[in-house]
Amino acid sequence: MDVSLQSLANGLDTIWVLLCAALVFFMEAGFAALEAGFVRSKSSINIIMKVIMDCTVGMLGYWIIGFAIMYGIDKFGLIGTNGIAVRGTLDHLGLNIPVDAFWIFQAAFAIAVATIVSGAVAERMKFGPYIIFSFLATALIYPVAGHWIWGGGWLGQLGMKDFAGSAAVHAVGGWASLAAVMVLEPRLGKYEKDGSANVLLAHNLPLAALGAFILWFGWFGFNPGSSLSGLDLNIARIAVTTNLAAAAGGTVGTLYTLWKWGKPDPSMTINGALAGLVAVTGGTAYVSHASAIIIGSIAGILVVWAVGLFDKKGIDDPVGAIAVHGVNGTFGAVAVGLFAQDGGLFTGGGTHLLLVQIIGVLSVSLWAFGSTYVIFKLLKAAVGIRVTAEEEIEGMDVVEHGIAAYNNPRPTQDGVGQAYIKSDLVAE
Amino acid sequence: MDVSLQSLANGLDTIWVLLCAALVFFMEAGFAALEAGFVRSKSSINIIMKVIMDCTVGMLGYWIIGFAIMYGIDKFGLIGTNGIAVRGTLDHLGLNIPVDAFWIFQAAFAIAVATIVSGAVAERMKFGPYIIFSFLATALIYPVAGHWIWGGGWLGQLGMKDFAGSAAVHAVGGWASLAAVMVLEPRLGKYEKDGSANVLLAHNLPLAALGAFILWFGWFGFNPGSSLSGLDLNIARIAVTTNLAAAAGGTVGTLYTLWKWGKPDPSMTINGALAGLVAVTGGTAYVSHASAIIIGSIAGILVVWAVGLFDKKGIDDPVGAIAVHGVNGTFGAVAVGLFAQDGGLFTGGGTHLLLVQIIGVLSVSLWAFGSTYVIFKLLKAAVGIRVTAEEEIEGMDVVEHGIAAYNNPRPTQDGVGQAYIKSDLVAE
Amino acid sequence: MDVSLQSLANGLDTIWVLLCAALVFFMEAGFAALEAGFVRSKSSINIIMKVIMDCTVGMLGYWIIGFAIMYGIDKFGLIGTNGIAVRGTLDHLGLNIPVDAFWIFQAAFAIAVATIVSGAVAERMKFGPYIIFSFLATALIYPVAGHWIWGGGWLGQLGMKDFAGSAAVHAVGGWASLAAVMVLEPRLGKYEKDGSANVLLAHNLPLAALGAFILWFGWFGFNPGSSLSGLDLNIARIAVTTNLAAAAGGTVGTLYTLWKWGKPDPSMTINGALAGLVAVTGGTAYVSHASAIIIGSIAGILVVWAVGLFDKKGIDDPVGAIAVHGVNGTFGAVAVGLFAQDGGLFTGGGTHLLLVQIIGVLSVSLWAFGSTYVIFKLLKAAVGIRVTAEEEIEGMDVVEHGIAAYNNPRPTQDGVGQAYIKSDLVAE
Repeated sequence: MDVSLQSLANGLDTIWVLLCAALVFFMEAGFAALEAGFVRSKSSINIIMKVIMDCTVGMLGYWIIGFAIMYGIDKFGLIGTNGIAVRGTLDHLGLNIPVDAFWIFQAAFAIAVATIVSGAVAERMKFGPYIIFSFLATALIYPVAGHWIWGGGWLGQLGMKDFAGSAAVHAVGGWASLAAVMVLEPRLGKYEKDGSANVLLAHNLPLAALGAFILWFGWFGFNPGSSLSGLDLNIARIAVTTNLAAAAGGTVGTLYTLWKWGKPDPSMTINGALAGLVAVTGGTAYVSHASAIIIGSIAGILVVWAVGLFDKKGIDDPVGAIAVHGVNGTFGAVAVGLFAQDGGLFTGGGTHLLLVQIIGVLSVSLWAFGSTYVIFKLLKAAVGIRVTAEEEIEGMDVVEHGIAAYNNPRPTQDGVGQAYIKSDLVAE
Repeated sequence: MDVSLQSLANGLDTIWVLLCAALVFFMEAGFAALEAGFVRSKSSINIIMKVIMDCTVGMLGYWIIGFAIMYGIDKFGLIGTNGIAVRGTLDHLGLNIPVDAFWIFQAAFAIAVATIVSGAVAERMKFGPYIIFSFLATALIYPVAGHWIWGGGWLGQLGMKDFAGSAAVHAVGGWASLAAVMVLEPRLGKYEKDGSANVLLAHNLPLAALGAFILWFGWFGFNPGSSLSGLDLNIARIAVTTNLAAAAGGTVGTLYTLWKWGKPDPSMTINGALAGLVAVTGGTAYVSHASAIIIGSIAGILVVWAVGLFDKKGIDDPVGAIAVHGVNGTFGAVAVGLFAQDGGLFTGGGTHLLLVQIIGVLSVSLWAFGSTYVIFKLLKAAVGIRVTAEEEIEGMDVVEHGIAAYNNPRPTQDGVGQAYIKSDLVAE
Repeated sequence: MDVSLQSLANGLDTIWVLLCAALVFFMEAGFAALEAGFVRSKSSINIIMKVIMDCTVGMLGYWIIGFAIMYGIDKFGLIGTNGIAVRGTLDHLGLNIPVDAFWIFQAAFAIAVATIVSGAVAERMKFGPYIIFSFLATALIYPVAGHWIWGGGWLGQLGMKDFAGSAAVHAVGGWASLAAVMVLEPRLGKYEKDGSANVLLAHNLPLAALGAFILWFGWFGFNPGSSLSGLDLNIARIAVTTNLAAAAGGTVGTLYTLWKWGKPDPSMTINGALAGLVAVTGGTAYVSHASAIIIGSIAGILVVWAVGLFDKKGIDDPVGAIAVHGVNGTFGAVAVGLFAQDGGLFTGGGTHLLLVQIIGVLSVSLWAFGSTYVIFKLLKAAVGIRVTAEEEIEGMDVVEHGIAAYNNPRPTQDGVGQAYIKSDLVAE
């Protein structure tokens, strides 16, 4: 084989990006397991089906038009203008790797944004309208925000730093979730008439925890892979700051709930670690180990506080998507302006970067919230977005898909159970 | 360290192949979860045990003799003749990477073929004979077919193109499954006396879906890794066509069942995506993005049609292995002759490649079907392949392994259940 | 980009180590699923929470001080003396890769040691003291042993070979588990008054099996990644010996229980494969394919024997951690002295290496046992390490975390179950 230094460098970058893309794609399995585990069993395969829709319909949406809007040649700092179906001249991207490698990595990010919303609308949103939303999330909502920051748009031009997307991915997904939930309204039974909130118990915490582990694993691709180069000397530091923030977030989430309620809450431990990951994602390449730990620690408190706040305010988010991704994505984007070794307020860089970060994350958050709000209102008017009360009580799985998530084990005739379970010979 | 361009290129290719081998191996976890989730709980750990047998006994079978038959020096275009225990002169392979790296990647493919069959024979095949079959699948059935296409055999000599194995892996596994099921006969209760089919409900759809995600994730290694080189400029395209076909298959499978039955069926969504992956596997390196989407879309319809067809014809395949791997592996091999940018009928390449592909996939399918049929008939005569009716009703888990898959949770005394569950202090 | 041969080599090694670190980290998901599946449902989220504590508190412990003790500049062959918070001069490590890449890989090993213990103390150890232990395991227990072998300490100076840690990781984790269990005492109901043992049934074998697959998958990083270089020509062989030992261990574990009890036991099949992996870990880079199969086969028998032995001796290890990691880690370290192609007794190398290996593994095992014993005794005296009998009967999940692992499905009013399950509108 003919090899040159340049072809080796390109090959190295290509396998790095492809393997990281695989890890980021695998986060969909993590989201699916986390969300399914956190909701009630009667609606658990429905939420997984929605995540699969992100991977299928959503991926096609990003292929058809989303990528073009995000990474096409910039117009007015607002939008990309070529690259439909990943075709045409994309030299302006200045890639060392094949466009296809870049695309698959970006596509895995795009579907993650849609999937963040899937958790927030769990247990009550109709399946059909969700498919339409998933397509629009990857075809329009995320690409516009992504263009502003990463695609040559006005926020990137302003100097905004968002390494792997605390703002572009997580704040966008999180605040889109808030809009969706506001239009969709809470699940039946979540709130009493006096406004007090009930806990609708997670049906399978081991599944949810497995999902969290998969997400953390996927973050080894999400953050370091965003270098787009295996020759970037910074990727090792990125891997470490990512993990330290997760460790700090999980530690603090656990200890904080232990102190507050006397018992460490599994969902807060899990969401604490995820909040740390989300918050460090923007600055992972720019901050020190110690700063990553501080960022993660703050995230671990923020997420507990935010989950409680939304719960009180009548915002019913079954998996904590808004608290994890919205609040901590926003915090993470701002944290870059505080902790970045080059330009952060706390490292002597003054307030310029901080202001840019605040403007940036507010802008994409408003865009995500507003566009999602409009889309959900339109969907509600056009086709309806919510199943009927009867259907919601019955459960989304049987109503939407004609089958329950779990059809065994089932109790035996005596009602007491045995060490093993006999199924019917003939079911259905 | 002394490094040269050549040693760097070899190192790059080696880590690429090893990491892709890990991904392909991990597909066994995907198969195990998918198959266990799709069957009834009473036989669910049994099917996982069979998958583990593929990873253990099957892997040893490929080490002892399978690899030699597949990749040894060719004799008559039919069979390899050296390389037992991965020893001896293997220079004819012309590898840039250590033979061991090549072997582990290939071994992960071999065990996948055996595992495809494990799903089709679920819930009724005895464990002991399955171990023997698993050994023969990796030691003989797959290696012969693989030799014909990839190991220097007559189909490769004819010009057959099967990049990552729509034919060599999936059609072989799928049609072997058909033979196995025909000898084994349907599960009790699957068919009424009038021939109408019952649905024996999947016991754990979240588990099955998690398996599907793992399989999709593993395909990031299965297809791009088949390049055997991280310097192959094509690997990025391969990753994209693979994913687009999966996305299209899942989309079409969902929408087709929504249109046909009014409710999108989770198993068809899952199998639609998998069918897209299977179908694109042969041509992933040769087709355009758009062709990949077309291939995946057709696969998404084919799989729904084929599942229904086999169900009607009395072929009881609990997980849809024949429809996913047999039908779509065959279609995928033919699709290379239709869509390949170099030589495909639809791209102006005429019918030559198409004919070669048809001959090729028919040949390996016949071999797989015939050899498996004979092996199952012999096993049936020699040791019996099916548990008794009483055992089948009882469930494979307790009968074969002395333990149920799930031993908790169990209902509480009042028979109504509580938010938490007390187990006995002393079990068994 | 400016690239040189050296920067390419460093980049190649860096992405290799980072991706392998991701795989090793993902083993925590495997441990969590395996352990949760093997215990009773009432204590299953508690054990997962403990594994998450290893990933969070434990990771911070290794960052703060553990890494310094393990890899700081050696003093007296006993302990490292710099590198707190991964700072300061670490040139003595002579790394080709960034220190951060080295650290994250090592950190994933450190938390694995703590996690091995989490399985052995399942279902009865209080959560708070476990957090303290987890911190000490990664901050002190493992780092000291690791320093002796890998960090420039006296065992490495003696010539001990322990490629990826049969001794440093697995024997240390396994014998620490024994000490912990001895102080903690058996679960209620495990032993009758006459000393006979009960089986407290695994609650979710599919989950446990999925965990085992994830662990096996992670071992593709654990062993090959320990080369710390993608240019090490040995990494392909390492991948193969690792897999062959696992295959042999799983095969033998299955066939041995089939022969002994008439039914292959899922937990022994799983633990057989894991035992093969543990045992080959020390010599994976030094032994032939055939030796790896022999090592794995012996491990498959050893683990069955050891599980039975500890059970009889009143050592209640719910997941078999001592048998898998302690016994087979020790055997694996010794096996290096028997099978290593360079210096092994059976390959004509005499007894020198064998003696060094025996001394080495005994030393680190004694250290791990002794230090853990003291820590558990101190914790017991200071804060108590065990929940009350009432709490243990109730289950760790509700007692420690206020929520059960599974809150659905639950039986319906008629006590017979249905194909789908209605949850209450309002839970809690």
